[in-house]
Amino acid sequence: MLTQLHRLTPLILRRTADLAQHHSSSTICAQSLQYCEYGEPGDVLQLVEVSVGEPKANEVLVQMLAAPINPSDINTIQGKYPIKLPLPAIAGNEGVAKVLKVGDNVKNFKQGQRVVIVENALGTWRTHGNFAEHQLMCVPNKIDLATAATLVVNPPTAYRMLKDFVPLAQSDCIIQNGANSAVGQLVHQLCKAWGLKSIGVVRDRANFDELKTYLRLLGATEVLTEEELAHKDVDKKLCKLASPRLALNCVGGKNASNIAKLLAPKGVMVTYGGMSRKPVMVSTPALIFKNISFCGFWITRWMKEHKAKPEREKMFADLLELLDQGKLKSVKHELVPLKDYKVTVTAALDIKGLVGKKYIFDMQC
Amino acid sequence: MLTQLHRLTPLILRRTADLAQHHSSSTICAQSLQYCEYGEPGDVLQLVEVSVGEPKANEVLVQMLAAPINPSDINTIQGKYPIKLPLPAIAGNEGVAKVLKVGDNVKNFKQGQRVVIVENALGTWRTHGNFAEHQLMCVPNKIDLATAATLVVNPPTAYRMLKDFVPLAQSDCIIQNGANSAVGQLVHQLCKAWGLKSIGVVRDRANFDELKTYLRLLGATEVLTEEELAHKDVDKKLCKLASPRLALNCVGGKNASNIAKLLAPKGVMVTYGGMSRKPVMVSTPALIFKNISFCGFWITRWMKEHKAKPEREKMFADLLELLDQGKLKSVKHELVPLKDYKVTVTAALDIKGLVGKKYIFDMQC
Repeated sequence: MLTQLHRLTPLILRRTADLAQHHSSSTICAQSLQYCEYGEPGDVLQLVEVSVGEPKANEVLVQMLAAPINPSDINTIQGKYPIKLPLPAIAGNEGVAKVLKVGDNVKNFKQGQRVVIVENALGTWRTHGNFAEHQLMCVPNKIDLATAATLVVNPPTAYRMLKDFVPLAQSDCIIQNGANSAVGQLVHQLCKAWGLKSIGVVRDRANFDELKTYLRLLGATEVLTEEELAHKDVDKKLCKLASPRLALNCVGGKNASNIAKLLAPKGVMVTYGGMSRKPVMVSTPALIFKNISFCGFWITRWMKEHKAKPEREKMFADLLELLDQGKLKSVKHELVPLKDYKVTVTAALDIKGLVGKKYIFDMQC
Repeated sequence: MLTQLHRLTPLILRRTADLAQHHSSSTICAQSLQYCEYGEPGDVLQLVEVSVGEPKANEVLVQMLAAPINPSDINTIQGKYPIKLPLPAIAGNEGVAKVLKVGDNVKNFKQGQRVVIVENALGTWRTHGNFAEHQLMCVPNKIDLATAATLVVNPPTAYRMLKDFVPLAQSDCIIQNGANSAVGQLVHQLCKAWGLKSIGVVRDRANFDELKTYLRLLGATEVLTEEELAHKDVDKKLCKLASPRLALNCVGGKNASNIAKLLAPKGVMVTYGGMSRKPVMVSTPALIFKNISFCGFWITRWMKEHKAKPEREKMFADLLELLDQGKLKSVKHELVPLKDYKVTVTAALDIKGLVGKKYIFDMQC
């Protein structure tokens, strides 16, 4: 155990070397959640103390304020995600930070500013770090911590899926399963903000009516259980709505097939998750005669392919404006200190309650 | 039975009425294969004599020369196809004809020219008929009858699927199942003509080596059985080829899934048939992380959406040029007289032999 505690990531080794080279004495004793092997997060994560030195010329030294636990973070640590980092690695893929100091060549950031980490796989579950300028984006200080910490993965996922696959006009309709997930809630809010109708599908539960009310308040036009969706009279229930032209799927299996059946001709189903762990079953006549198509969306790839592109800047500007106008609400969340990571990462695997709750590490407590 | 024999399609009723109205005496006693109810073609088709009158101002009177029996013709008669005609209806959807007489306002056709019927659902299993000018397209007289009769459905299907879904550069690779089908054979030939590599997948059979030789001669770079494709070492067999960027699927089920696994990132599977009658199973990680997408193609829709469009004209010009250069060969076929329809439509349902053979009605015998 001791050996593992003292193994550092290559990143941190580099920082320490830089530090020695620059003969600077101002190092920070930072904490980070690292893993040296793939496995269950509760087993393999360790809180490791590391020295963080001065930022290099193009770097920004930040103090992390908050970083969420996303399902993909858990899958990455489990080794089940397509992105495999050299180990040991610091966990976490998004988060909000405060600029402590900038390198000599840094032009776009200054001390005290609030920033979010916009590049994947840099390790955000830590208290301090140096990041390259292009890995950060400024956000207004007035945005609450939880919202800023979760700005880079879920809201862009919802935004892009609604924008990039089917041209939607006012009053057009979309349908999604996993409507109570973090992305699902954002989708209903964006639809409301943009004048789109949205049908949400969720698993049946004791407090379904309460969930339905909550999702309709967010912006859902109609909320159905998976059982209602599978019923042959579902069309009657939706008769006042136009057939959806876009379906968002994070479940797969039978539920995805039932949703695909409701799509209008030329409709598109976009898959961004597979909670049922079952494949999407695609009917041949739907492909050929209804011209339905099936695509996937992965925000990590989109962000990478749109580095410094105007679409990415416009998206974040739009999202920040909607947040400012109160049209997007932060997902339900619970702030937890970094030191409580063992309990938290395990709890994050087993989300209960009315709607998906996100655990967010609060590095200040 | 007699009653049914004398029920005429609305089309033919109209012609007879026109005829009476124009007081013309030059009517032709034509034969047509009609059905008054949906069912097995051998049971419901009837050879019916009808009068065909003079062409109206914008019409062309033709003598049908040959018309193929396509799987979709059979499905239409069975009532299993999405296009439902008012009954009774004349069967058949493509064919080649000779112009006998043109209406007063017809500019683009003249007597003696050879034409193909380019609009769906007009009924081509007949000896004579009047068609609107836009429902016909001229073809050179030198093209053999079987090729001309089968020009409008299969070659455009192969052509569009290779052109419209993934931009393919020289030496790029595609993969298809049902490689010995009529469309499959055309795909391999077009790939060879356009400098594309193609992998064909077929069901295992006693004479597989012979079939493999035949398909390689047509243009296939590699030919595999479904069993070889399912084998985990399939990659080794294909190691000299780049991962396919496009997959054409007319089978579905497990076979389609195995093909999808070989696709390169951002690859597309286009489904145009479902011979196994099983849905396409789409893996969630393939959708999200490999960005594979799944679409359908239906030539009937494409032809309708591209009436009088330059893409359609260019496509037929390209296909006719390739035929003229001997780079596209007519599919294996057997010419049969219209009167033998009962035996033939049943045989067409149960295609045997090395490669898919097409039955073509020859109206001149």
